[in-house]
Amino acid sequence: MKPNASNALSALGRRTAVPPISWLMQTALTRPKLISLAAGFTDNATLPVGISRKLLNEILRSPKTGRPALQYGITAGETNLRALTAKHLQKLDGGHDRAHSPERVLITGGSQQLLYMTLEALCDEGDIILVEDPTYFVFLSILQSRGIKARGVKLERDGIDLVHLEQVLERLKKSGELRRVKALYLVTYFQNPTGATTSLAKKSAALKLLKKFERTAGHPIYLLEDAAYRELSFGRDAALRRQSSQRDDPTTPPTALTLSGAPERVIYTGTYSKPYAPGARVGFGILPKPLFTTVQRIKGNHDFGTANLLQQLLARALATGHYDRHVAKVQKNYARKARVMKSALAEHFPASVEIWESGGGLYFWARLPGGISAGVKSKVFQSALKNDVLYVPGELCYADDPSRAKPDNEMRISFGSANEENIRKGIARLGNVLKKFV
Amino acid sequence: MKPNASNALSALGRRTAVPPISWLMQTALTRPKLISLAAGFTDNATLPVGISRKLLNEILRSPKTGRPALQYGITAGETNLRALTAKHLQKLDGGHDRAHSPERVLITGGSQQLLYMTLEALCDEGDIILVEDPTYFVFLSILQSRGIKARGVKLERDGIDLVHLEQVLERLKKSGELRRVKALYLVTYFQNPTGATTSLAKKSAALKLLKKFERTAGHPIYLLEDAAYRELSFGRDAALRRQSSQRDDPTTPPTALTLSGAPERVIYTGTYSKPYAPGARVGFGILPKPLFTTVQRIKGNHDFGTANLLQQLLARALATGHYDRHVAKVQKNYARKARVMKSALAEHFPASVEIWESGGGLYFWARLPGGISAGVKSKVFQSALKNDVLYVPGELCYADDPSRAKPDNEMRISFGSANEENIRKGIARLGNVLKKFV
Repeated sequence: MKPNASNALSALGRRTAVPPISWLMQTALTRPKLISLAAGFTDNATLPVGISRKLLNEILRSPKTGRPALQYGITAGETNLRALTAKHLQKLDGGHDRAHSPERVLITGGSQQLLYMTLEALCDEGDIILVEDPTYFVFLSILQSRGIKARGVKLERDGIDLVHLEQVLERLKKSGELRRVKALYLVTYFQNPTGATTSLAKKSAALKLLKKFERTAGHPIYLLEDAAYRELSFGRDAALRRQSSQRDDPTTPPTALTLSGAPERVIYTGTYSKPYAPGARVGFGILPKPLFTTVQRIKGNHDFGTANLLQQLLARALATGHYDRHVAKVQKNYARKARVMKSALAEHFPASVEIWESGGGLYFWARLPGGISAGVKSKVFQSALKNDVLYVPGELCYADDPSRAKPDNEMRISFGSANEENIRKGIARLGNVLKKFV
Repeated sequence: MKPNASNALSALGRRTAVPPISWLMQTALTRPKLISLAAGFTDNATLPVGISRKLLNEILRSPKTGRPALQYGITAGETNLRALTAKHLQKLDGGHDRAHSPERVLITGGSQQLLYMTLEALCDEGDIILVEDPTYFVFLSILQSRGIKARGVKLERDGIDLVHLEQVLERLKKSGELRRVKALYLVTYFQNPTGATTSLAKKSAALKLLKKFERTAGHPIYLLEDAAYRELSFGRDAALRRQSSQRDDPTTPPTALTLSGAPERVIYTGTYSKPYAPGARVGFGILPKPLFTTVQRIKGNHDFGTANLLQQLLARALATGHYDRHVAKVQKNYARKARVMKSALAEHFPASVEIWESGGGLYFWARLPGGISAGVKSKVFQSALKNDVLYVPGELCYADDPSRAKPDNEMRISFGSANEENIRKGIARLGNVLKKFV
């Protein structure tokens, strides 16, 4: 047999596909006039350059303060940052203190890394994760790469369809597959891609439903709550709200961590990347204790812990209040850009296109009337490209689930990185394209 | 069946053991007077606090320069840092330019992450990696966690025993296991734990041997060269040597990348952590092209790419010459501490203890006369602990390989983090312990 390089790859190595988004990015690069409403990047204009310079100067002002930031640390993360993270989440959740124990906080290189390691800890090839239909497409890439099956649960504007969740679980019970189901993955705030926010009532009901099926599964079925966009709320008055409880703000309900039984069943992932700076990538998770231990060990094998310099930067930003003040500014900026996009959509999009509006995050979700495709190979997408405007075809956000066809008439439209002028221009271009087909 | 949390874990999750080193660290924390000659930490005194402050101020001096550092980047790493890394390695290798193509450079969160992802790309459970006997124990932890088998190849002072390598390969061929062998892992410079450096002749011969067995394997058997300690050479005159070719310096022979056939068969991992700052963790790899593509995709699923702020810090350190000047200082510091340890060993250790001296890195390797154990449960180790001095028992650095017993009469002794006074005191304490048993 002649040596063949692909024979040397593992099943994972052979399986890992090119990320669907990467050719979108490539396409964007080849058309210099293209306006991208596809990227989920944060807004360049709000990146905290001056604050970071100031804080890093403080950290590195002397050998005494600077050396710990440049040395190895503890795998789970800086003790100080873990405590500040727990405190920060307590504040966001209106003071629940027992739900956010610093001992269960794991600091990671962005929340993506935590999702990856959690799936490593929980899932063998062929195991099943329940996901929202549609969901975050990079999460689907991890599942695909690791040979984990996804099963979609219908999504409504206030979170998953609970009746459908129960049907899916019943079906898996009947087919004997329940023991393969390890978690339900929910992007609970201003969801990527739809902007939907899950109500606390739905989180509570979902947790109870999972619990009900655990006896047959023979193990916990975790609720994996991804709160990556949580702090990008448009709020009513973001600056004010952060001073008090968020209990009354329907756009940012408390996390599932606050529910009874959560310490044993809820895995929570969050990030400082989106609200602060993706280039200083620090994320975190709160995990049930035995799972924490396993994921911490896996983290030790990945990288011994996230770079201390970045951890100290975020810890100092949190401790000095710079973080909160910066987030308030970021929220205002995105709220303004969302308003710009909303009025452009009203002006340029055909009335028959259904728009999901969000209370935060980076996305609008648009659904074309039945039968009209907005998918990667559709006339709409190709025509948009020819007219120099790019969106994310919604079909990329649907899991490979043999129990239903993938809808292809949707689009994720982001106001994250484009400026106001380009948001207006981009939506006008896209609207003109749609008018030809709708 | 009652829900059981460990039933929810994957095989990997259940398997991943507590790292052997973590209880050593815990032990160190409980004895405040303890002198640790165990930690492989870099020396706090040499961490580049002032340089990093200066460079970060330059990067963050304006929105124009600062924003790209705080934004998302490209999964493979900053184009500039990839080019500078290729150039840096070319210089270390005396000008081989084709061997170090920037297109094959992948920037990672330390070289550990590259090792992890490479194993993900290559190995299924039950696959085999050949390792040095002894080898880097965190690499063994990854293998253990991922269910990959390790087979040990005897180590001599100038690298692996080639006769033994051929025997091991022959044995695997006979048992039909050759198709499971994916790579030979060598820590080629100032090896962890022994300090041994692999000669270029041995790298070349090993590469040829692997090639010879590929036809039966049906796929490439890669040479995975871990050069983490490469830049920590004591050299003859470190500052001078860095200006010219290293070809004549036997302590830092060229990498296997310079060998014929290497672009298809050599995976090289290096790091800026140890020579610059572990707290600003940036590592890199050079991979054969098809494998590069696979590992890059895996990296996308892990974290989309390493934090740009750290990448830009290292790029600027390299471009301005600060990196090279800093490394020269670091080398002098470790060379001095190694001399201190060497004379303390000569003064305090019994003559019957065999000492391996290195031309760089952070470690001495000591072998007690036959029959005397220095293992974790040995009287020597317990007595050392009672006398407030800690070393790494050599047995932790041996793979689980059923074909031979693990030697337990060796110790890794580090001068990395202890200061000169503690090096002298620590070796005196350890010498007194050994005199009771040897």
